[in-house]
Amino acid sequence: MDATEFRKRGKEMVDYIADYIEKIEERQVYPDVEPGYLRALIPEFPPETPERFEDILKDVERIIMPGVTHWHSPYFFAYFPTANSFPALLGDMLSGGIGCIGFSWASSPACTELETVMLDWLGKMINLPPQFLAEKDGEGGGVIQGTASEATLVAMLAARTKAIHRIQLDNENLTQGEIISRLVAYTSDQAHSSVEKDVLIAGVKIKQVPTDDSFSVRGSTLRKVIDEDKAAGLIPFFLCATLGTTTCCSFDNLLELGPICNEENIWMHIDAAYAGSAFICPEFRYLLNGVEYADSFNFNPHKWLLINFDCSTMWVKKRLDLTCAFKIDPVYLKHDHDESGKLNTLCFILQHWQIPLGRRFRSLKMWFVFRMYGVSGLQEYIRKHVRIAHEFKDLVLQDDRFEICADVILGLVCFRLKGSNELNEVLLKNINDARKIHLVPCHLRGKFVLRFAICARTVESSHIQFAWKNITTMTKVGFNTKCKG
Amino acid sequence: MDATEFRKRGKEMVDYIADYIEKIEERQVYPDVEPGYLRALIPEFPPETPERFEDILKDVERIIMPGVTHWHSPYFFAYFPTANSFPALLGDMLSGGIGCIGFSWASSPACTELETVMLDWLGKMINLPPQFLAEKDGEGGGVIQGTASEATLVAMLAARTKAIHRIQLDNENLTQGEIISRLVAYTSDQAHSSVEKDVLIAGVKIKQVPTDDSFSVRGSTLRKVIDEDKAAGLIPFFLCATLGTTTCCSFDNLLELGPICNEENIWMHIDAAYAGSAFICPEFRYLLNGVEYADSFNFNPHKWLLINFDCSTMWVKKRLDLTCAFKIDPVYLKHDHDESGKLNTLCFILQHWQIPLGRRFRSLKMWFVFRMYGVSGLQEYIRKHVRIAHEFKDLVLQDDRFEICADVILGLVCFRLKGSNELNEVLLKNINDARKIHLVPCHLRGKFVLRFAICARTVESSHIQFAWKNITTMTKVGFNTKCKG
Repeated sequence: MDATEFRKRGKEMVDYIADYIEKIEERQVYPDVEPGYLRALIPEFPPETPERFEDILKDVERIIMPGVTHWHSPYFFAYFPTANSFPALLGDMLSGGIGCIGFSWASSPACTELETVMLDWLGKMINLPPQFLAEKDGEGGGVIQGTASEATLVAMLAARTKAIHRIQLDNENLTQGEIISRLVAYTSDQAHSSVEKDVLIAGVKIKQVPTDDSFSVRGSTLRKVIDEDKAAGLIPFFLCATLGTTTCCSFDNLLELGPICNEENIWMHIDAAYAGSAFICPEFRYLLNGVEYADSFNFNPHKWLLINFDCSTMWVKKRLDLTCAFKIDPVYLKHDHDESGKLNTLCFILQHWQIPLGRRFRSLKMWFVFRMYGVSGLQEYIRKHVRIAHEFKDLVLQDDRFEICADVILGLVCFRLKGSNELNEVLLKNINDARKIHLVPCHLRGKFVLRFAICARTVESSHIQFAWKNITTMTKVGFNTKCKG
Repeated sequence: MDATEFRKRGKEMVDYIADYIEKIEERQVYPDVEPGYLRALIPEFPPETPERFEDILKDVERIIMPGVTHWHSPYFFAYFPTANSFPALLGDMLSGGIGCIGFSWASSPACTELETVMLDWLGKMINLPPQFLAEKDGEGGGVIQGTASEATLVAMLAARTKAIHRIQLDNENLTQGEIISRLVAYTSDQAHSSVEKDVLIAGVKIKQVPTDDSFSVRGSTLRKVIDEDKAAGLIPFFLCATLGTTTCCSFDNLLELGPICNEENIWMHIDAAYAGSAFICPEFRYLLNGVEYADSFNFNPHKWLLINFDCSTMWVKKRLDLTCAFKIDPVYLKHDHDESGKLNTLCFILQHWQIPLGRRFRSLKMWFVFRMYGVSGLQEYIRKHVRIAHEFKDLVLQDDRFEICADVILGLVCFRLKGSNELNEVLLKNINDARKIHLVPCHLRGKFVLRFAICARTVESSHIQFAWKNITTMTKVGFNTKCKG
């Protein structure tokens, strides 16, 4: 395929994507396929000679689309949103076309520099304390990670290195292995499973700190766990506080946790994967109060800020903490400017901030989205989602067979039928089997709960009304007698 | 921006990308900017209200392009290639448009299933032993990782878990920490720096095994290091063998190393990041002989197989080894099919194979590239690069002031002026300062060496002739006297 054919096919693909998104409501939100459906539809071996683009595009409809869960359907209320916007798609196309690999400043200066500036822009949009920004030769700065899992892992590894160095200063005879075996990390009992994966990797211990009635980790509880662990000879070194948990979008109490962490030399990392985008609205910014105590902060604009996956933004107060944990400098990555120290001063050595070496030009899609929506456009989008979530909550509250299971603060509503878990499991199965809308569950204090997350960019009040009608219809099919129990 | 405007702007972007790639020779391959250039060109704050697309596209030329290192210029010979092809761009556009997140089978069945089948296709293209494939309910299978660093890390962590379990079976009293502190990993003294980063993360020790005159790790050397380490109380558990090292594209001797690893319960991982793509050509497949001894194998189609970054393909013989290391199962990721065990049998639980949870629909670009080039088209592309590399080698050999520093097997030529390192450092600086072509160096046994990597998809013999002329011109500017020395 040469550039001339790409011009033709690329434009056809633009139309295909526009059609897909414009008419997504007509597609069934969750697919009917059974595991293994696709292999039977595809040849056993790749073709020896080139095939025609027309045939491939036909196969997208015949083979791929029947197996797609349509995350951008306005009937999709599962998990959390994943972003998809036209400006982000345009930025990503350009990133692909340029196709540079930004593993060092020299490997494509614009790639590293735009990222640093975009992270400053976004940091200002959520009013992060200036220590987290790279401008004005500070000690902090931001970087794009692939996912929140990676951001937490990077923070945890930096904290591990820092703890080992500190402890070895006072105890020369302790080996790294001995220290690691005594390190303990903390997170909420509502935190995302990725934190557990991260401690498996780091080889440290983890304690899930019990949450209060609002599913929030409080200072007194953390203090108690820390004291017990220290008495048992463990070394507390890391807290992953969560703002907007995956289960029910609850918020840990940073203002209580922060001073304890600072006092105890515990690295405080904040994971606001979903909720972080809301902090661009002044009325939600209070949820981030206490970030000033944190060492690192992360959220996923690829969830709720209209920037397509992957774009997980992470800031640190002292970037030296990250580079100490990861710094490796082979000759083939060196160039003239390295010697000057200028790159580090300017916050341009991002390869030491992450697990992979290679990096795509992901800041382009941030730049496109910020400029084509403007801050006001993004705020409006967040506010619409929150408004619609409250609308759904009100519908639930009007039906006294149901209960709301956690405070509705942003775009997630956790609800259930009053009654047994079994009842709610059957309800959810019936909802998803009907394929009109798509939800996933969670457990809250042993209760099986339905999560209703506002997800699609194009979701409106009418879709919520439809969804609620659909849910209540399900409760009429053989549910009435059980619900009375 | 609505779908109607996206149709217009998307097509303009397609043309912009086509123009960029068609006319890339006219752009200076390496930029003139100094660190920090970009911040001055961009406002301090994001805009409050939306801006026009035309203005953003103008800024791409004004702000971004002056800071881009043009990896796809036919005058780019630095690092290793990074792929960029029109079919891959189309596949990526579609992936962005669908915008699903494939962290579980249910979250988008097509995303997981196409990936598994594409990894089987690619495995067959390079004639991997069938144990590495997922088809026919085997124990193995493949997955797309972001980078080779991540693939090596995942393999190392799985090996670590396996070693801990095995050792604890015989030594119940040994803690995980005690075992980890005695684990030692091996790799070539020519291996990529990412292996060092991976051991920092895993908290284990690493030994760089000395290479022979061809920069290859041999069985006898590995045997010696293992014996010494065991005598010193260490536990050898992991070897990262390299096929196609970053420095000089040398190849470790798998046929000697494999049996030793199998005998010693050492996990053998093979990193063929760059070279792996060449194994689709029967005449280069011999370089992979011995893979039958390996536990895991990885290469980067995003380097040399025309599939845009990121696409690092990894296969394992026993996928249970990976899932044991990473398995975490929260309720919100469960669904009906989980219970059946069918998903695992079909190799569909890829989130346990990697560090992040979320995953893009990256197999679409593989599918597009394999079908639009055909195996023969891809082979032709690899062969062209190898042919051109040999052409460059011949040019170097015809000038007796220069020497070739490592065997030219694929698309990389390591060469230098006979003489001091300083001389070669000046030569490289002059070449890069002239901005006509772009190279990076490496060190081989203390010698400063210039790496000439065949990179661009569109590179032809004429560009090689130009590059060589450019290099020799540099040696005439004040070099003559020194070169005689």
